[in-house]
Amino acid sequence: MSHSYNPVSPEIVELLTQIVGAENVSTRAADLEARSNDQGIHPPQRAEVLVWVHDEQQVSRVMALANQQRIPVTAWGAGTSLEGNPIPLLGGIQLSFERMNRILAVHEGDFQVTVQPGIGYKDLNAQLQRHGLFFAPDPGANASIGGMLANNAAGIRTVKYGATRDNVLRMQVVLADGSVMRLGSRSIKQSSGYDLAHLVIGSEGTLAMITEATLKLAPIPSHFSAAVASFNSVSSAIEAVVAVRGSGLEPAALEFLDPVTTALISGSDGLNLPEKPTVLMEFHSAHQGHLQATLDSVREICAECGSVYFFATTNQSERLKLWHARHHTYETIVRANPGRKVSNSDVAVPISAYPILIDFIEANRRERGVSAYSFGHAGDGNIHVLYVYAGEQESAAAWAMNTAVVYKAIELGGTATGEHGIGLGKTQFMQSEHGQALQLMRVVKTALDPNWILNPGKIFVD
Amino acid sequence: MSHSYNPVSPEIVELLTQIVGAENVSTRAADLEARSNDQGIHPPQRAEVLVWVHDEQQVSRVMALANQQRIPVTAWGAGTSLEGNPIPLLGGIQLSFERMNRILAVHEGDFQVTVQPGIGYKDLNAQLQRHGLFFAPDPGANASIGGMLANNAAGIRTVKYGATRDNVLRMQVVLADGSVMRLGSRSIKQSSGYDLAHLVIGSEGTLAMITEATLKLAPIPSHFSAAVASFNSVSSAIEAVVAVRGSGLEPAALEFLDPVTTALISGSDGLNLPEKPTVLMEFHSAHQGHLQATLDSVREICAECGSVYFFATTNQSERLKLWHARHHTYETIVRANPGRKVSNSDVAVPISAYPILIDFIEANRRERGVSAYSFGHAGDGNIHVLYVYAGEQESAAAWAMNTAVVYKAIELGGTATGEHGIGLGKTQFMQSEHGQALQLMRVVKTALDPNWILNPGKIFVD
Repeated sequence: MSHSYNPVSPEIVELLTQIVGAENVSTRAADLEARSNDQGIHPPQRAEVLVWVHDEQQVSRVMALANQQRIPVTAWGAGTSLEGNPIPLLGGIQLSFERMNRILAVHEGDFQVTVQPGIGYKDLNAQLQRHGLFFAPDPGANASIGGMLANNAAGIRTVKYGATRDNVLRMQVVLADGSVMRLGSRSIKQSSGYDLAHLVIGSEGTLAMITEATLKLAPIPSHFSAAVASFNSVSSAIEAVVAVRGSGLEPAALEFLDPVTTALISGSDGLNLPEKPTVLMEFHSAHQGHLQATLDSVREICAECGSVYFFATTNQSERLKLWHARHHTYETIVRANPGRKVSNSDVAVPISAYPILIDFIEANRRERGVSAYSFGHAGDGNIHVLYVYAGEQESAAAWAMNTAVVYKAIELGGTATGEHGIGLGKTQFMQSEHGQALQLMRVVKTALDPNWILNPGKIFVD
Repeated sequence: MSHSYNPVSPEIVELLTQIVGAENVSTRAADLEARSNDQGIHPPQRAEVLVWVHDEQQVSRVMALANQQRIPVTAWGAGTSLEGNPIPLLGGIQLSFERMNRILAVHEGDFQVTVQPGIGYKDLNAQLQRHGLFFAPDPGANASIGGMLANNAAGIRTVKYGATRDNVLRMQVVLADGSVMRLGSRSIKQSSGYDLAHLVIGSEGTLAMITEATLKLAPIPSHFSAAVASFNSVSSAIEAVVAVRGSGLEPAALEFLDPVTTALISGSDGLNLPEKPTVLMEFHSAHQGHLQATLDSVREICAECGSVYFFATTNQSERLKLWHARHHTYETIVRANPGRKVSNSDVAVPISAYPILIDFIEANRRERGVSAYSFGHAGDGNIHVLYVYAGEQESAAAWAMNTAVVYKAIELGGTATGEHGIGLGKTQFMQSEHGQALQLMRVVKTALDPNWILNPGKIFVD
């Protein structure tokens, strides 16, 4: 399947200017260059014209024009993605939501907030704090909410609170032809017709533009605790992860770190952790008194699974020190490898397959001589492998290993991506992961965007 | 839009017999009559032929035949739905999953189970008990898992564990043309392409036949407690519901009962509850000791909201007595109204709108002189109104009131159905609730089922 597109002519730029105003249209190299790639390692590509939209009506008019003229349209939020998801691969119009970033309503009694897509995740939560609420799916970066919706972002707290898609009730969207509609409602429970909101979430801007979203919020926990445990083997560590999940203690984070990653962050943050497979945990409670009993149970569970080190705390500064180390793993790895590139890959498997996957990663690292760090959201079966390399040969070896790891994850009943999305970097695995369903995705794509103008080149290898 | 269908000829019956065997095909009136309606009040309609399938290959061959011959196909599970969802409105083939009801695998370490669609919800959980796990979305009845998936069923514990759609990872489905595919994977986190599984869930058998599903399970809680509180007004009761949700105490059930329902079940089960707006709660914990502190907090919250009665217990028989009363509300109402019909309607709104909706229901009941009971899953903003009537005049009044209540729920930002689905009973509200998105649902329907052979007459008014 191949689609043809037209370039952005001066006449088109003029029409766009009429829609959004001259101050919201740019063809300057600096503006386009600044939005030509994300935080991943994919080659940059500039759009032909950048358009900052301010409201749904503008989005609708831009889309109708682009659809009529067969011009690619790619959304831009904060550019914090990793698989090239927002790179305007075929040029065209870059639709930036940076200036469409307001909170429209805090529905405090409903534990909901309605926002425009350009607002940052951290900015949103900073503003929600005074309401005692927060939007739970934490992607680490200050991603835009629109980007989180587009990629179904997730993170450390997904084990308790779910991914982005589990926390969206209602969206306003604009289709490729400019038609505007609401998907879902503000009711927590919905069983009314097709779940189109969840079709659009995770579609990486290839099915519709999201112009507004009502998100589920969680009450900010009153009390936190953290624990860290070390094991002699990955399988013991994952046995503990499974046992903690099965305990009913409802961990809010359940992270795995391989020995080399543990050693690195331990040294950098003065944590004195053994260089062993490590599990990092967090627990939330409405009662201070409950945390100690929870931590006692966790200690017991870890001991039964053969932990060789255990440390738990309800002290805030000790807890934050531990999580600071985990949250800055990427930066610590970058700092420890000056002059080399770091590529963050993401796969996920059923938890029972986690030790097999980690063993596979270890074996590949040894055999291929690739420098790689493994850590991730073990409670969800999600692992990140950070490849460190310099030069073509190392890059090729890292890429070959990544390819092998992704195929292994799929073979184990898992997925090519748990939270980063397909973007450009994972398109080659779609057939292998989805088989016949990939064809159905194409059918759906064509039904919603007949001219394939929305974010072409992503998800599908054209 | 109108589609034409062909009748089931003797030749078609012969072809079906070749696919599934003579013992799995029936045109007997008794077999067809027994599956001509669900537990709701919609008029029965017989299929032309009943086919019991045993595996995916048979489903695929039946679908290919039906699609080629333009014969309607409607799935049958347990018939416990309420909106006529599985009634074969246009006759055709009734595809029964009753004999395709095995557990295919318990993935204990992954907290997952893979099942065929015909297994009953209660039967599944009975078998999972020895693994210390359960499938949480509780629809009350022993619904088939296939039916729960088709209607996105939910229930009392959704406030903590989510609805059916929140607990599905992977499905095998057969499209209208007989093509077979897998949607999703066994990974808890998935961000790989379009979320087609969630498009099919809740589509009421109009997009695909589900032949297999991998479900998320939860550990059976170690300790339970229950509490009941009475208030002088609905708004105070809902204030307590919101406060309990916001407390971080993570209720596993948060139910509302209006005074007349409370009085009825209280009398029937010897509970001695005041005839007041009532809130029923359940809490789960891994620690027995935590329950008392939780209940103390709940008592305090309810007192602050003006509770005039409060009772809490960790005693199992007291707890079960309370929940027995709630679980049998429908039967109690039926018994209290001999010779009259009882119709169970279902709407949901943002919680903040709950008191407005209840007031609206109260006012309508008075003004219209309709006999109605209101209760439901307040923690999710979900309310059931049970209309009791005899004769045409009362029936018309009840139906008129139901119509007004549904429009009110939609006006309040809610939905025509939180958990029963659209079926036949709610099609008239689809345009009002979804506006332009209803047209998009039609586009998706046509893309997946071009001849509209799957469960025609449901969701859409043709």
